[in-house]
This record gives sequence, C-alpha cells and structure tokens, in this order.
Amino acid sequence: MATGELKFIRSLRNRTGRASGAVRLGIGDDCAVLRPPTGHDVLVTTDFSLEGRHFRRDWHPAASAGHRCIARGLSDLAAMGAHPMAAFLSLALPAGFTNKAANRVWLDGFLNGLLALANKTRTPLAGGDTSTAPGDAILADIVLLGSTPAGKELRRSTARSGDLLYVTGTLGGASAELEALAKSPRKFRNASPTGDHPHLYPTPQLRAGQRLRSLASAAIDISDGLSTDLTHLCEESRVGAIVEADAPPLHPLLTGNNDALNQALHGGEDYQLLFTAPATAKIPSRLATRIGEITRKKAILLRHNGKLQPLQAAGWEHAL
Amino acid sequence: MATGELKFIRSLRNRTGRASGAVRLGIGDDCAVLRPPTGHDVLVTTDFSLEGRHFRRDWHPAASAGHRCIARGLSDLAAMGAHPMAAFLSLALPAGFTNKAANRVWLDGFLNGLLALANKTRTPLAGGDTSTAPGDAILADIVLLGSTPAGKELRRSTARSGDLLYVTGTLGGASAELEALAKSPRKFRNASPTGDHPHLYPTPQLRAGQRLRSLASAAIDISDGLSTDLTHLCEESRVGAIVEADAPPLHPLLTGNNDALNQALHGGEDYQLLFTAPATAKIPSRLATRIGEITRKKAILLRHNGKLQPLQAAGWEHAL
Repeated sequence: MATGELKFIRSLRNRTGRASGAVRLGIGDDCAVLRPPTGHDVLVTTDFSLEGRHFRRDWHPAASAGHRCIARGLSDLAAMGAHPMAAFLSLALPAGFTNKAANRVWLDGFLNGLLALANKTRTPLAGGDTSTAPGDAILADIVLLGSTPAGKELRRSTARSGDLLYVTGTLGGASAELEALAKSPRKFRNASPTGDHPHLYPTPQLRAGQRLRSLASAAIDISDGLSTDLTHLCEESRVGAIVEADAPPLHPLLTGNNDALNQALHGGEDYQLLFTAPATAKIPSRLATRIGEITRKKAILLRHNGKLQPLQAAGWEHAL
Repeated sequence: MATGELKFIRSLRNRTGRASGAVRLGIGDDCAVLRPPTGHDVLVTTDFSLEGRHFRRDWHPAASAGHRCIARGLSDLAAMGAHPMAAFLSLALPAGFTNKAANRVWLDGFLNGLLALANKTRTPLAGGDTSTAPGDAILADIVLLGSTPAGKELRRSTARSGDLLYVTGTLGGASAELEALAKSPRKFRNASPTGDHPHLYPTPQLRAGQRLRSLASAAIDISDGLSTDLTHLCEESRVGAIVEADAPPLHPLLTGNNDALNQALHGGEDYQLLFTAPATAKIPSRLATRIGEITRKKAILLRHNGKLQPLQAAGWEHAL
C-alpha cells in the first residue's frame, strides 16, 4: 500500500469514527460488523461512480461528484422503503494523484460532498477499499446497506392492474440542469447543496419511501428516466400502464422549454420515486402526484390530447 | 444502458437465480434483500480487482482472475470467523469489449471462475452494478457479506501479551507461484482450481476461521504478507510479537529456494489465517502451526539462531 493511500485511510477513519448506530465495528479490521435492528431485513445496493462516465472533473464541482456518488445508492434504498445503515466506499486514484495540491483539494471536496449527504441521512461510512487506478480516471464504487422491517420492503414487481400510478416531486430538472452544465460549467462552480440543483445535488427521497411502505403496492426510483423505469416496473410486475401527458409535474427549470414533456418523461437521474397504489389508498398531494394507472394489457401508453400512443422507453443516455 | 450490458445482466441473473439461503431477493430490483440468521451480526468487506493492478490478462487465466476476485473477500470473512451470505459484483468493461469473441470468452471464463468458488463456498451472487469503463482496463469491485453469531466475530485488536501465535496452512506459496507466472505465463494457461495453485487459485480458510471463533483470541488473514499483517494485528491490539525463524511452515514450491524464509515472512496473498490464542487453548496441529508469541513490549521481532532482530513489515508489493 502506498504512503498516500495509508494516510488517506487514516484520515477517513478519523473523520468517520469507528462505531455508531448499526455499525459495531467500522474501518480498521478485515470486515466491518453491523447489527441490523431486531426483526429487520438487510438491503444492499452498489453503484459505480467512474470519472468520464458518471462525472467529469471539468464539469462537476468536487462536492457534487461526492454527493452524487452516495445519492444513487441512497435513492435505491428509498425506492424500497429502507432506512440507511452504512456505506462502503471503494476508491481508486490514478498513480501519483495526491502529489498535486489541486488533486488533494479535489479529493477533499469529493469526500466533503459525500460525507455531508452521509451525515444528513445518518449513513455512517463504515469501510471500503483503496487502490491505485490503472489509468488516468478516478474510479469509485459505493455500497449502501439499509434495513426494513422483515418482509416489508417495497418492490418493483408487485404492481397490479387497476392500481394508480404516482410520482414524488418534479421531473426533468436533472436533465435540464445537466444541459445547462454542459453549456457553461463555470456557472456552476459555486453551486451548493443548499440550493435547488437537481443534477448536481439530487435529494434521495428516503422519508417518502419509508412512508410509502404502508401506502404503495410497488415502487422504483427514477434513475434512468420515467419511461425506462416505468418499463422496468411494468416488466417485473407483468402489467402495462397509461400515463397522462398533462400529469407529470415539471421542474421549474423546464419553464418555457419546448421539450419539457420529453425531458420529464425521459430525462434521467431525477431520483424521485415512481410508485403504484390501490385506488383506495389515500396518497397526500404533498407526497406525490397521480400521473396515470396500471393496466392488465402489457403495453406502456401515453394519453395525449385524448389519444393513446406508445410511450417508448427512451432511456436516458449519459451526455458526459 | 448498452445492449451488451443488458444481455450480460440477464445472463448473470439466469445463472445466479433470484433467492437462496439468506438472499430473499436477488438481482432485478433497486436493492437485494437479505435475511441474516436470527441473532447474527452482518459482516461486510469490499475489494477492488483492477486489471493491471490485481490481475493481468496476459498472465492470469480468466478463471483465475474471477476466482481471485471473490477469494479476497471470502478470506476477509474467514479471518473474522464468518459464514458467507452473499456477494455483489460491480464490473466495468471497456467500450465495445463484448464485440470481440475472444473478450466474450474471457468474460465467460472470469465469471465461471468467480461462480465456481462462490458455489463451492455457498455464496450466492445477489447483485452488483455494470458500467462501461473509462479506459482500456477491466474494473471489478466485489462486496462480500457474511454473518456470525452476534458479538462473536474474531477481531485483530484483541490479542493479549502471553498469547501464542499461530498460522494455518503454509506460507510463501503464492509469491513463489507469482514469480514463476511472471517468468512464463504460458506454463499456467491450463492451471485449474483443482490443482495446488496458491497464487492463481488460493483457498479462503472459511472452515478454519469458523472453528477459531471458539479457540482464538484475535485473527487476521495474510493478504499483505505475514510481516505486514502481524504488524497490523499488533498495532490494533497494542502489543508486540516474537516470531521463531524456523517455525513458519513453508509451501512445497519454496523447496530448495534460497530466499524461502523471506518469501514466507513477506510474500503476500497466501490467504492463510494468522491468529493468537491463550497458552491454555488446545490448537490441533492439523489446524495450525505455532510460530511465536505475543509480547507486552510493542516490537515485532524475529528469533533467528537464538538472536532477536527486528522483523520489518516488508509488505508485499504487487509485481504486476
């Protein structure tokens, strides 16, 4: 292990502590040891954050790259109604990376962004791995562990025909902000997580997901775009759906945008929750907006001006 | 997501199944869902396997790269006395990788090697992530989850002065085989996991670790070399140690090797267990060999021909 790597692990260990909440033993042994709440199942999700694929150092502020790294997994936990237990970060840096002061500043910003969202969501960083990357790109992989009362997790495979279809928050904001970021990254240099930055600093819908455990019949998070994630949900549940074209709530960034509906339907990384609930369920309007219904016929349709047309899964392509 | 990626995930899902043992829900939702045995803690470890750092396609048979990818985490579980519950594989392939038939063959061999050891150790592959790698190198990161009865895990921080020091199996074989591999990779093209290949196909000591839960006072696996891992154990336990130079059991590959003792003391990746036990504990000779003792004085010493000398942590450097 290189000196820089050892230093980095020691600093992480000092910043993250050794034991809290479900974490009985954190960084510093062969494994971390977690004790889930009695009678709870353990949920696990892993996500790459690879430079050039998931973030760009010339576009994303370091804190945004760190925030986004952990936000994806937290959103997966939210989609299943889980409470976060711990995160594990594997990080590979190019050879000699920490020799440059600017790189050390970047790394510090990345970890600050990651740990800020970890702290906000009470998700201790309990371990991981470090290595030298084989190329010039920074490579991260993060694991999130969460818990739900046994057997009570929300799944994407349990929607039924006749259920109504809902979405939390607003859609299309992340892809709209990504477009703006690609045009002039400089404008976003000082963007902070306290502002509304749906691409740079998305908010995982953990509380909404936890509440939905007693309301929803199925759920998925919108990471690839509504049309693609609805397709996943329908395929796993073996049902179809009709989406009302005037229903999806648009993010304010789409105001005046001619392509607003497409961005809302197909734009990825909004990290809102798409869920179904029986028609009898009372879904508070502050929690979510009804955007359609689940059908027996296995087609995914959009009702536009009274006419039904296929809603193609035009999954979001990374524009990086 | 690219077509190749979707195909790959589907084939993995078909090969790994959806639920078994502790895995209530495997690949195909936002998270996997695990149910640990009642009254057990959950252990977590993550390990990179990066091409050019941890394996080379021109040296390692594909099955060996896959085997080694999961062996490291299984060895971490073994060191803490855990039973494996599930593995999660994050895999990023260079753009267009699966277009070439030879690459598809490699990928298949890699997964075969990984799944063979997973099956042998009853470790279902329950999820992960896939992505396009930013460069030309294959990038893998694996997570292993295991369980022990609550509070009964073996740690590296609990050795006491007066304890005796033991090691399972033999040492130095992995570094000896790596040297041979570097000289003539062709000779190892057909090496199989059924042979004794301490570098290409190491055996995680899961059963030994589980047995040690009731015998050992502290344990660590030998991934970085005896001298380095003993240093970790002593630092975490705030003790010192004396190793008898004639005690470490040498792997047969070291027969006639002038540098045998150094390879045994400093060679990495043997994935044997280094552990301590009270002098009163009865350690069967088939389970492990006594190689020294734990001391109050915080120095790590080698007793050679009756003389004590410092045993430097000359941690294994990847020769890749």
